[in-house]
Amino acid sequence: MLEPGATIGILGGGQLARMLAMAGARLGLKSHIFSPAASEPAFDVCAARTIAAYEDQDALGKFADSVDVVTYEFENVPAATADFLAARKPVRPNPRVLALTQDRLIEKRFVQSLGIETAEFADVADAGALARAVARLGRPSILKTRRLGYDGKGQIMLQGGADLAATFRALGGVPCILESFVPFAKEISIVAARSLDGEFRAFDVCENVHEHHILATTTVPAGLAPETAAQAADIARKIAEAADYVGILAVEMFLIEQQSAPTERLVVNEIAPRVHNSGHWTIDGASTSQFEQHMRAIAGWPLGETRRHGRAVMKNLIGEDASRWREILREKGACLHLYGKTEIRPGRKMGHVTYVVPETK
Amino acid sequence: MLEPGATIGILGGGQLARMLAMAGARLGLKSHIFSPAASEPAFDVCAARTIAAYEDQDALGKFADSVDVVTYEFENVPAATADFLAARKPVRPNPRVLALTQDRLIEKRFVQSLGIETAEFADVADAGALARAVARLGRPSILKTRRLGYDGKGQIMLQGGADLAATFRALGGVPCILESFVPFAKEISIVAARSLDGEFRAFDVCENVHEHHILATTTVPAGLAPETAAQAADIARKIAEAADYVGILAVEMFLIEQQSAPTERLVVNEIAPRVHNSGHWTIDGASTSQFEQHMRAIAGWPLGETRRHGRAVMKNLIGEDASRWREILREKGACLHLYGKTEIRPGRKMGHVTYVVPETK
Repeated sequence: MLEPGATIGILGGGQLARMLAMAGARLGLKSHIFSPAASEPAFDVCAARTIAAYEDQDALGKFADSVDVVTYEFENVPAATADFLAARKPVRPNPRVLALTQDRLIEKRFVQSLGIETAEFADVADAGALARAVARLGRPSILKTRRLGYDGKGQIMLQGGADLAATFRALGGVPCILESFVPFAKEISIVAARSLDGEFRAFDVCENVHEHHILATTTVPAGLAPETAAQAADIARKIAEAADYVGILAVEMFLIEQQSAPTERLVVNEIAPRVHNSGHWTIDGASTSQFEQHMRAIAGWPLGETRRHGRAVMKNLIGEDASRWREILREKGACLHLYGKTEIRPGRKMGHVTYVVPETK
Repeated sequence: MLEPGATIGILGGGQLARMLAMAGARLGLKSHIFSPAASEPAFDVCAARTIAAYEDQDALGKFADSVDVVTYEFENVPAATADFLAARKPVRPNPRVLALTQDRLIEKRFVQSLGIETAEFADVADAGALARAVARLGRPSILKTRRLGYDGKGQIMLQGGADLAATFRALGGVPCILESFVPFAKEISIVAARSLDGEFRAFDVCENVHEHHILATTTVPAGLAPETAAQAADIARKIAEAADYVGILAVEMFLIEQQSAPTERLVVNEIAPRVHNSGHWTIDGASTSQFEQHMRAIAGWPLGETRRHGRAVMKNLIGEDASRWREILREKGACLHLYGKTEIRPGRKMGHVTYVVPETK
C-alpha cells in the first residue's frame, strides 16, 4: 500500500496519462511521465517527466528508481520495456496483461478460454490462409492486423468480391486475424476495476457510438435488460480475475438482439487494459472517476464508489469539434475538458464534453 | 478572451494554486507558478514554475513575458509586485483589490462605504488610541493587526482586565484595528464570481465552523432564510462591482439572530480576494468548481453554472487529521483531497474531504 506522496510512473503522455496524473494529484500522489515525445498533454500536470525512447534502458532504469509503481496509458508498451521495469518496480496491470491484449488472436483465444463469446475468428498468416478463412466465416467479415491497430487503423471490411490477396497486402502482409461481422444492435462497453486485494467494482454499462471508427458518443446507462448488464459485469470480472488484473480495464462488446430468449446476447469485441475513452463520463458523472479508481487500485488502495450522479452523455471533441469551445462553455450543464494539444488535426482527440442530467425515478 | 493553450501565471504555490492549476488544465489552460519556496504543492501539477522572491524584478519580468494573465492565491502579494506585473500583463483580480483587502482598516471602511454593515471598529495607531477605542467599543473586543493576519494569527481577544499597553506590544506595536465582538449565531461565507463582462454568479451560502481560528467544517446550504441568502449574494455583488472585480471572491460574514424583524442580520467580517477554503466543496458538489469559475473569469470566459449536486459537507484535514487517509478512502461518499505536502505540522492544512448527499425535496 503506497503512502500519499508516492510517485506513480506512467508510460505514455497523452490525454489518458494527463487525466490519470490529475486524479493522482487530487489524492496526493505525484506522477512521473515517461514518453518519447517532446511535447505531451500530460507534461503540463506532472511532477516529473522523462523524454526518452521506450528502448532506452538507461532512462528506464532512472525512471524505475524514481517511482514507486509503474502503469501505462496504452496497451502497446513494448514487452521488453514492461519486463525491464517489472524487474525493478511493480508494474500494474501486470505485463502478462499486455501480452494478452497486444495481439488480437491471443486476446480472442484468451476470452474464449473463459467461456465468453467472441466473434468467430481465424488466424490469417498469409493470403492462402485468408482465402480459407473467408470460405469458413463468409462475408462480410473483417480482416485486422493482429497487432497495433486502433481507431479503425489496421483493419479492412471484406465485402463480396474483394480481391483477397490485394486486401492482405494492403494491411502490409503482416500476421492478421479474420473476424466474422457481428450484426450488432448496439456497441457497449463496461469499465471496471480490480484492486490489489481482488476487490472488483464496475461502472454502469455504457452505449458507444463510433463515427469513422472513432468513439463519438458514450451514453450511460446503456438501456440494457438488468440481466444483460449483470452479464457484462460478470464478463469483465472473469477477465480481470483470470488475468490477475490490477487497475481499470474496459471491455468493448456487441449487443445482439434476437427473437428467441434471451433476447439480448453479448459478444466481446476487445479488451483495453487501461482507462478508456468510454469511461471519461465518470469524471463528472460518478462518485469516483475511472482515473481515480485506477490510481487507487495500482496504489494498493481500496476502490471508490462507482455510483452515477445521473444520466450521462459524453461527446468526444475530434479535430475541428474543439473549435466549438466558446459555445460549449455557455451550454447549460456542459463539463468541458480540453487536453492541451496545440495543433488541431482531423481525427485527433482534442477534448470531450460531458452532460450529466439527474435521473427522476 | 484567452484561447485554450494560454498560460495563467499564478503567484503562490500552495493548495489553492494547486487546485487552480488542475482546474485550468481541465480547460486546456497551462499554469506557470511563481513562488519563493523551493517545494510547493502546485509544482506537481503545473506546466512551468519560477522559484524567486516576489521582489526579484528580473524573475518577475520573465514570468510576465511567459504568461497571458496573472492571478494570485493569496491577498498579501506585495503591492510593488502586483504593480510591476500589471504594467506588463493583465492582473486579475486587479491590484487595487489587493490594496483594499491587505489592510483591515481600509477594507472595513470600503465595505461600510457601500452601505454594508461591519462590526464597529476603531483605528488603533498606538497604545493611547487603544485605550480610547476600548472605552468606546467596550469589551469583549478584538485587537487585530491591520495587515498580514490569517488563521487567528495577529489578533487578540480583549476580555475584562487585560493590560492594554501589553496587549498592543504583544502584537508587535504595529498599526492595529479594534473590532467590537459580534455575538454571532453562525459564521457564514459566500463564494461568488464576477466575469470580465460583469456577469455575477454566486454559489449557495455556506456555514463555517472554525476550530482554533482555522476553518474546520463547511456545510452548504447554510440553512438561512431565503431573504438572508439573497442579501448575502447582494453584498458580494456590491463589493465585486465596486471593486471592478474579476474572478472568485469570498465574503465571510456573521449571522446575528434577533427578536425583532428581520430575525436574521448579516455583518461582514472579511473579504478574501481569491478562491477560498469554504468553496472547496464545489469541486465535488457543484456543477462548476470555484477553481474552474476563477479560471473562466480571469481568462475572459463566460462563468459556469453554480448548481449544487446536493447537500455538501467539507471537512479540512488539519495536521494529524491527514493520517486518517486510509479510513477516509473507505468511507461511503467521501471525496478525498490531499495537497501533496510532505510534512505534517500542527495547524497545517494537509487536505480536505467532501461528502455530498443528494437532497430529497
